[in-house]
Amino acid sequence: MNMVLLFEDDFVSGETLHEGGRVRLTGRRCEYVQSVHRAAPGDRLCVGIAGGKIGHGTVVRIDAEILEMDVTLERDPPASLPVTLVLALPRPLVLKRVLLSATAMGVKRLYLIQTNRVERSFWNSKVLRDGELVKPLILGLEQARDTVLPEILMRSRFRPFAEDELPQLVDGTLGLVAHPEAKAECPRDVAGEVTLVVGPEGGFVPFEIEKLEQSGCSVVHLGERILRVETALPALLARLF
Amino acid sequence: MNMVLLFEDDFVSGETLHEGGRVRLTGRRCEYVQSVHRAAPGDRLCVGIAGGKIGHGTVVRIDAEILEMDVTLERDPPASLPVTLVLALPRPLVLKRVLLSATAMGVKRLYLIQTNRVERSFWNSKVLRDGELVKPLILGLEQARDTVLPEILMRSRFRPFAEDELPQLVDGTLGLVAHPEAKAECPRDVAGEVTLVVGPEGGFVPFEIEKLEQSGCSVVHLGERILRVETALPALLARLF
Repeated sequence: MNMVLLFEDDFVSGETLHEGGRVRLTGRRCEYVQSVHRAAPGDRLCVGIAGGKIGHGTVVRIDAEILEMDVTLERDPPASLPVTLVLALPRPLVLKRVLLSATAMGVKRLYLIQTNRVERSFWNSKVLRDGELVKPLILGLEQARDTVLPEILMRSRFRPFAEDELPQLVDGTLGLVAHPEAKAECPRDVAGEVTLVVGPEGGFVPFEIEKLEQSGCSVVHLGERILRVETALPALLARLF
Repeated sequence: MNMVLLFEDDFVSGETLHEGGRVRLTGRRCEYVQSVHRAAPGDRLCVGIAGGKIGHGTVVRIDAEILEMDVTLERDPPASLPVTLVLALPRPLVLKRVLLSATAMGVKRLYLIQTNRVERSFWNSKVLRDGELVKPLILGLEQARDTVLPEILMRSRFRPFAEDELPQLVDGTLGLVAHPEAKAECPRDVAGEVTLVVGPEGGFVPFEIEKLEQSGCSVVHLGERILRVETALPALLARLF
């Protein structure tokens, strides 16, 4: 946790949250700051308000149950990546790690989609439930000192998404499908918006590649090595931006 | 498992392993090919021999206990990355994932080092024991269809490593330390050998940065976002090569 992410509810009533004020935290964040940061009254921690600015909090009180800080918000969060990510739904444990790392890298819009090689049961994962899905996103923001939660959209049918929705997403952007069997290399250091489509373990089937190409995407590879999605995704984003 | 990694012992006696021959597998690889690939006699799987060539195996017999294949070895494994990686020892669970992804990306020499912010207890992790350390490396090779195991070297004292050993490693290469507080951006698409030093959770302390600079390394960042090592490492390697 390189930054403590704050929400409106954390502010003691009557405070002006836009410029800062007194916050009172309990639970995970309090425990973390006490046991890992080993903070004491007077210490300064990096904080940010969800959807807003970043600044610092001076610890006023800390014990096993309550952390109070006086918070000053002063600067904007880091720039987001100009990318819309379309990701074949990974298995639940991988999904958590991928959501965290995509958020940490600055992805702000992420579609999770069904494809032929995505097990249907993955859609029942508790990671996808309300209240659970936000947890790895918060960890990603805290990791990267960002405050803006990404939007996660779920599309559990491939064909309507690829035919009706994806062409509009790709329009005006550089549309790319990462696919180990592609003939072209993934470009580097691109300018402008990108729509990046990443397949499941085992890859896309030929019918899907055809549909993705029809939607305006080019098929590209990262070399002859086949990488897991949690490795391929940071590699793709770092190469593109 | 995109390739089944074979070892000399897998070959039925009398076979010429350099060109191929009959292999008999039990345990993890047999179970995986049966339950995940759902292979049947006559099916062809991608195989490779540790330290040698890649080819295909035709399934001759498969049941819950034994997988037999007739193997033909025909082409070289993919090129390795021209990098020596120096990594502050991560916590055990992260270490396993990082060893897997570094191996999959083609790293062939990796130093694990002690730094100020590495917990001493990490050196007692069972992941580091003989027989355990090789497991994530094998998974990484199977993932990326590579056959050449990386060399893992452990240095549990920072100063002798940084003063006596690192300068020679860096000599004749581009030495880089990834550090979020650096002033220079990490270069892209470099030519030649790189020595890449990556810090622990919480980063290097100033004394360590000084020592690393004295050894011939330049300090570089990947932007203002602080990334976990499992995200930063694929991002760095994809950006550099």
